[in-house]
Amino acid sequence: MTVVTLTTDFGSSDGFAGTLKGVIWSICPDAHIADISHAVPPQDVLAGAQVLARAYGFFPVGSVHLAVVDPGVGTSRRAIAARIGWHLFVGPDNGLFTPIYDDALRNEWLVEIVELTNPRYRLPEVSRTFHGRDIFAPAAAHLAAGVPLADLGPVVKDPVRIELPQARRTPSGWIAHVVAVDHFGNLASDLEAASLSGKETFRIRGREVAGMVPSYGSREPGSLVALADSEGRLEIAVVNGSAAELLGAKVGDVIEVIE
Amino acid sequence: MTVVTLTTDFGSSDGFAGTLKGVIWSICPDAHIADISHAVPPQDVLAGAQVLARAYGFFPVGSVHLAVVDPGVGTSRRAIAARIGWHLFVGPDNGLFTPIYDDALRNEWLVEIVELTNPRYRLPEVSRTFHGRDIFAPAAAHLAAGVPLADLGPVVKDPVRIELPQARRTPSGWIAHVVAVDHFGNLASDLEAASLSGKETFRIRGREVAGMVPSYGSREPGSLVALADSEGRLEIAVVNGSAAELLGAKVGDVIEVIE
Amino acid sequence: MTVVTLTTDFGSSDGFAGTLKGVIWSICPDAHIADISHAVPPQDVLAGAQVLARAYGFFPVGSVHLAVVDPGVGTSRRAIAARIGWHLFVGPDNGLFTPIYDDALRNEWLVEIVELTNPRYRLPEVSRTFHGRDIFAPAAAHLAAGVPLADLGPVVKDPVRIELPQARRTPSGWIAHVVAVDHFGNLASDLEAASLSGKETFRIRGREVAGMVPSYGSREPGSLVALADSEGRLEIAVVNGSAAELLGAKVGDVIEVIE
Repeated sequence: MTVVTLTTDFGSSDGFAGTLKGVIWSICPDAHIADISHAVPPQDVLAGAQVLARAYGFFPVGSVHLAVVDPGVGTSRRAIAARIGWHLFVGPDNGLFTPIYDDALRNEWLVEIVELTNPRYRLPEVSRTFHGRDIFAPAAAHLAAGVPLADLGPVVKDPVRIELPQARRTPSGWIAHVVAVDHFGNLASDLEAASLSGKETFRIRGREVAGMVPSYGSREPGSLVALADSEGRLEIAVVNGSAAELLGAKVGDVIEVIE
Repeated sequence: MTVVTLTTDFGSSDGFAGTLKGVIWSICPDAHIADISHAVPPQDVLAGAQVLARAYGFFPVGSVHLAVVDPGVGTSRRAIAARIGWHLFVGPDNGLFTPIYDDALRNEWLVEIVELTNPRYRLPEVSRTFHGRDIFAPAAAHLAAGVPLADLGPVVKDPVRIELPQARRTPSGWIAHVVAVDHFGNLASDLEAASLSGKETFRIRGREVAGMVPSYGSREPGSLVALADSEGRLEIAVVNGSAAELLGAKVGDVIEVIE
Repeated sequence: MTVVTLTTDFGSSDGFAGTLKGVIWSICPDAHIADISHAVPPQDVLAGAQVLARAYGFFPVGSVHLAVVDPGVGTSRRAIAARIGWHLFVGPDNGLFTPIYDDALRNEWLVEIVELTNPRYRLPEVSRTFHGRDIFAPAAAHLAAGVPLADLGPVVKDPVRIELPQARRTPSGWIAHVVAVDHFGNLASDLEAASLSGKETFRIRGREVAGMVPSYGSREPGSLVALADSEGRLEIAVVNGSAAELLGAKVGDVIEVIE
């Protein structure tokens, strides 16, 4: 009973994500399938990479994570599968797995990547516009069913990487960035909360927040606050409200941290 | 093969609901997991309570219902699990289960509530902002795996209740309220259709509807109608259209019923 | 372990789709359930028919496909279940299965349709507004659990059909139509790409596209292109963008094809 997760920019209206499940169950009938997100902004590889990186580690060891944000579908970009640490990944070779790959290098986890060239593990007909269905879902399902990674194709040593946003030290503190805006309008950043004393001042879009709070409930509804998010990173939020809306903030905005 | 359901205000873009599934399957690998809704309006405990109350009873006896609409996350509000009648519930102690709890009192069902204090049934690290992942999902999964409710923590005798809207009798009929606006723009109310003869006049936002119809198809498309909804309550609808849009109606609006 | 799929216009906020899953698992505890879409535009039978027709064939042989887009709920329209080829279908008799039924006639697949009249395969109480829950989900679950189709009710020989859009030949080429706009803003059509040489000119909403490309990546981001979609039909798209937005295009728009 292997778990397969899905992270795509397919949306939820057209049946594309459902089609992936049909393909997977046709090959591996007892897979458990979980949607991580189908609302990655279209073609936004970095956003997809971050959603997946945040979620995958909470799935059982041995899970197969299928991710498709694939502006290069039908071109010569490679299709890959990878074992990174205790999890398996399948998707286009466009940097979608960069944060996880970087973690693996830092922590000396096992990394094994192959190119999906073996026609035996694709659908019989492969379209030029829907490799999620025709190449990636079959590969993920075969892995979930126990096919060895090496059977899928030749080893890849040079996976494509994307640039990840990274907070940097300044003489007076840090320059951090908004890396994601969640459904509540909370602003996630690229700065580890462990690097902070909690007494800093945070400046974003002309507003200032003095010090960090332990949780949303530490301030009145409507207050702009800084706190550690569930990944242990600096977050800017409005208690029971939306920081994105209050500040007009978006991904890429600078958060100046003054010690 | 126990069913676990999820009702949250997490939205579907950020992978939060998927993360809950990962946690659940890590603990209880053969759970069936169903999303009830992840589109409860942010922090709207009453709306979440109503969505869950309407759906849970159609799941198998013994299902575990995980509900997280949790403005007080990280504060001293209690985390609870409950057996109410033939179902189990896990979530913050903020009134999310009030309609179900009230039904139980009215019908003398078994009610058993505990506070989730046993660290053995949490994730090893508990954040201050994502108890859905760190406390509630593990508790739900352990219950689904057969852990006795009493092992999770001490008994709670005074769960938090919220005020539920309630239609009231007037000399000339009823004052009812719009309690939910569904995806079609149908307006659900807090008035039992069984209390009505079907010949009443219904007044809402300056418009009047004379009498109830048996089903949408009883009138021409575009007609404003009153009927009994699938919970046996008064509903105001537009045939093949949206009553919410036609009337500019929203939750809390008054429906005057004149006998 | 039978698969049941769901295609509805219920939306994802109100818990209606979750309720279907509860009913299904109460009757057939080991069914695998996949959402195809709950975002069919309200009451749009044609759109629902197309979403289902595109997806169902990728599910395992023997899957049960529950589809509910049902403006006639509670009227005398029939409720049906059908075996068409290697799949089973359950829903209102309003044309939702027309494209699949037409395929079956063309390909001489087995077709067997019954009316859902047997009260044994419904919920004990049947509402006038939610047959998805009370009639269709129970029927689908019983079929998934192995109940023979013929047990559900008497044979139907004259299922309701809807008119499907169809490209037509002209002296100078084709008149095709936009039949769906997907999440990316790609425009699906009713014209088989196999009927084209690829050197035609495509005229839509005053813009022209000369020739077809093999894949999105064949042109620069932002380019308006024509190509074969994953169903083998003509598609109009903008590379890494939205043709629907660029052109202001919508379902029903004409695509003039000039040879």
